[in-house]
Amino acid sequence: MKLFSNYKSAASHRLRIALALKGVEHTVEEVQLAAGHHRRPEYASLNPMRQVPVLIDGPRVLIQSLAILEYLEEAYPEPPLLPSDPHDRARVRGIADTIACEIHPLLTRRVVGELRTTFGQKREQVEQWYRHWIAEGFSAVERLLAEDKRTGRFCHGDAPSLADVCLLPQMEVAVANGCPLDAYPTIRRIAAACRELSAFASTSPTTADAVE
Amino acid sequence: MKLFSNYKSAASHRLRIALALKGVEHTVEEVQLAAGHHRRPEYASLNPMRQVPVLIDGPRVLIQSLAILEYLEEAYPEPPLLPSDPHDRARVRGIADTIACEIHPLLTRRVVGELRTTFGQKREQVEQWYRHWIAEGFSAVERLLAEDKRTGRFCHGDAPSLADVCLLPQMEVAVANGCPLDAYPTIRRIAAACRELSAFASTSPTTADAVE
Repeated sequence: MKLFSNYKSAASHRLRIALALKGVEHTVEEVQLAAGHHRRPEYASLNPMRQVPVLIDGPRVLIQSLAILEYLEEAYPEPPLLPSDPHDRARVRGIADTIACEIHPLLTRRVVGELRTTFGQKREQVEQWYRHWIAEGFSAVERLLAEDKRTGRFCHGDAPSLADVCLLPQMEVAVANGCPLDAYPTIRRIAAACRELSAFASTSPTTADAVE
Repeated sequence: MKLFSNYKSAASHRLRIALALKGVEHTVEEVQLAAGHHRRPEYASLNPMRQVPVLIDGPRVLIQSLAILEYLEEAYPEPPLLPSDPHDRARVRGIADTIACEIHPLLTRRVVGELRTTFGQKREQVEQWYRHWIAEGFSAVERLLAEDKRTGRFCHGDAPSLADVCLLPQMEVAVANGCPLDAYPTIRRIAAACRELSAFASTSPTTADAVE
């Protein structure tokens, strides 16, 4: 298996975590987004959205991090990243999707680039944009976690799930952008628990950055 | 089962389609977004993101349309909205997520509202924002569909899947916003096939609007 990834990309980080948790052997090819390598025709033929991550599995090309996480869960069920009860599975996916569909899409390079180029937004306004969506999304996730007794050491119980796989990368983005985090004690506690596991810590952008 | 829905919301439309395709008995409660009913405390206690849709299933509150679609697929497997082969499932989810994670989140009320209020964007710029993301996303989805022989009458084969459940509502949003669609013949062909099924057509915003 081969993962096309960018070390700063939160969506790529999700897959690096899941592959590490499940112990799936794979190689990583770094896609230089700053150099525009994702816009090369040969990369666009893998993913017409010209985004990372992409997973190559034999003859198959898989796109979209949530879809790939579900694939990995089906193909490599151990350790499980979804609980067995259908309602609990919906809860874990609901938290993961709140992060992956309500926060992350608004903070990608292409969206921030569009704000800058077409709308002429300056650095300060882009920072405000970041902080606004992190605050709105994390406020909701904090409630989902703090008000549900199914929350444990991690987002759901005492083992990491797809919710944590999405939460920690988003937290690293929030930290990197200097977003205020005092209002989210449960998120901070769970992020700290994640960072104690090498699957999360060894794949994080800061670690990858330091290694380069 | 009770669905909190808004008739214009593409994410709500996904669930109305899936519930209809699977023949799941349910009631629909219309959430008046224009009147701000989603910001009421009792609604926020169901979904802290203050969004539609929400599905109430006995004592359980389910949020996030993609998570709820997966739940419905697990709890009501017939007719299946995901194929059986794991790579094919990843393909269907990849198309669905390209729509649900790359196009839709940028076009929601809260995002357009933020562009207008905080960034002071005018109507014309908001229309440009709509057209830009529909064009970028639909160009990618068109390639994913046109260049893969697994595409049939619908996005994957000859029966509707979660990809179609996400595609048609996004198409209705594009049509409602006057987005150019000539460049997407495969999307238009599949949307037409969807509209021939009552589960798609009877739940669409225009129909609901006409009924009101």
